[in-house]
Amino acid sequence: MKNNPIGIFDSGLGGLTVLSEIARILPAEDTVYLGDTARVPYGIKSKETVVRYALEDAAFLKSHKVKLIVIACNTASANAQDVLQKVLDLPVVGVIEPGARAAVEASKSGRIGIIGTEATIRSNAYTRAIVELSPEAQTFNIACPLFVPLVEEGWNGTDIAERVAREYLKGFKEANIDTLVLGCTHYPLLKEVISSVMGPGVRLIDSATATALEVASLLKENGQECSEEEAGTHAFYATDSPESFTKVGARFLGVRLGSTSLAHLESIEHG
Amino acid sequence: MKNNPIGIFDSGLGGLTVLSEIARILPAEDTVYLGDTARVPYGIKSKETVVRYALEDAAFLKSHKVKLIVIACNTASANAQDVLQKVLDLPVVGVIEPGARAAVEASKSGRIGIIGTEATIRSNAYTRAIVELSPEAQTFNIACPLFVPLVEEGWNGTDIAERVAREYLKGFKEANIDTLVLGCTHYPLLKEVISSVMGPGVRLIDSATATALEVASLLKENGQECSEEEAGTHAFYATDSPESFTKVGARFLGVRLGSTSLAHLESIEHG
Repeated sequence: MKNNPIGIFDSGLGGLTVLSEIARILPAEDTVYLGDTARVPYGIKSKETVVRYALEDAAFLKSHKVKLIVIACNTASANAQDVLQKVLDLPVVGVIEPGARAAVEASKSGRIGIIGTEATIRSNAYTRAIVELSPEAQTFNIACPLFVPLVEEGWNGTDIAERVAREYLKGFKEANIDTLVLGCTHYPLLKEVISSVMGPGVRLIDSATATALEVASLLKENGQECSEEEAGTHAFYATDSPESFTKVGARFLGVRLGSTSLAHLESIEHG
Repeated sequence: MKNNPIGIFDSGLGGLTVLSEIARILPAEDTVYLGDTARVPYGIKSKETVVRYALEDAAFLKSHKVKLIVIACNTASANAQDVLQKVLDLPVVGVIEPGARAAVEASKSGRIGIIGTEATIRSNAYTRAIVELSPEAQTFNIACPLFVPLVEEGWNGTDIAERVAREYLKGFKEANIDTLVLGCTHYPLLKEVISSVMGPGVRLIDSATATALEVASLLKENGQECSEEEAGTHAFYATDSPESFTKVGARFLGVRLGSTSLAHLESIEHG
């Protein structure tokens, strides 16, 4: 069991930023990654639908005998982590709590901004996690639905990205935050433009590293660390267009992926 | 049978622009509209996935005893109309051929531009339909993936929309087109900005009216026109977030919708 892979899923490619950190911090671990590219994006969909999709994603990973599941997607973590934890007999790690903890540690003033998809912001999950850790903290939430398509179009370096960022982030003008949570796995690719709009006084928090550290400590706690010496292997599955996943995935992972296989998910009725 | 409703489907809301024209031209007809909002958008997905989704959408409409099916979605028309026509024992009308015909009729120079989602442009369906009607025509294709999220964000009137339009449409600079097909049902909401970027020498073609006229002539041909006098009724279904469909739908339809019901689709294996 301890040498079984870690399962990781996301609505699409964004979770590869989390995989990348897991592979850096836990180089011996095998991983199985599922991107639900046939139904991407999750961020514009209802809680009920996101829960159903997350259950199907997790069932696919379970069938690959994973020892732990990472929800490498803010929308799915925000809306479905509690259900997955209840239903699965496996440890489940989401990106919200590690990100919230990192934000609370980084913030001096306790004034913390959060940006994410509509579904993540609507869930209020970051605010709940932050206030639980630091009851006097104050959070300011803004949904930024155009950021994901901008990144997927590869326009992160353009002046259009800057105009869009200025438009969304002007909502933080009066808030006087000192920390901003990048509450979507696509947003680290916009770090530069977000940082230039927010200015040097605002620390940007990206959950990927914090989540990977949480996975490491949980495996250690449970005595489930991989006992092998050589570098782990990484398997990739997508529910649609595996070739395009392999190609665009390199932008997120920073290195070339091996090939990606097509995944067929079983429907789960959840009501 | 002749008083049965017309079935209309789209990946989401965009097809309401087609419904609106059908209701205007055929005011006595009942309609059933399905928006597959749980899996929207289709335009970034593979042909195989779009075909599977279209089969499931059509099966849902068939279960509502429709007399004819309108694929009010360019991506699904471009990728799945031939399969639907083969599989269903009902007339199927897509938006590509009516749009292509309108473009050929409008163009004097035979130099026609086409904009659409990645899946529509990749399919080359407009070019095939246009060249079949007018073999000497020349087409120029550009995919504009950010247009749909821009419209859904309600930013169609902003200078960001203009910047994005300028970026995409500059590809037509040398092409010297006199006609531009708006090959996605969301794009009519960007008509003003596209028109201002392209200039007065370029006619914009929106398939909605042409498609509604095609439906009217097909019903007449088949003796299936509704024989009732009073105005038709319109039923709306969405696979996710029916309340939000009702709200945002008003932007596309120009009038308030009645309520929208949640639709459960049956999975179809297609291989």
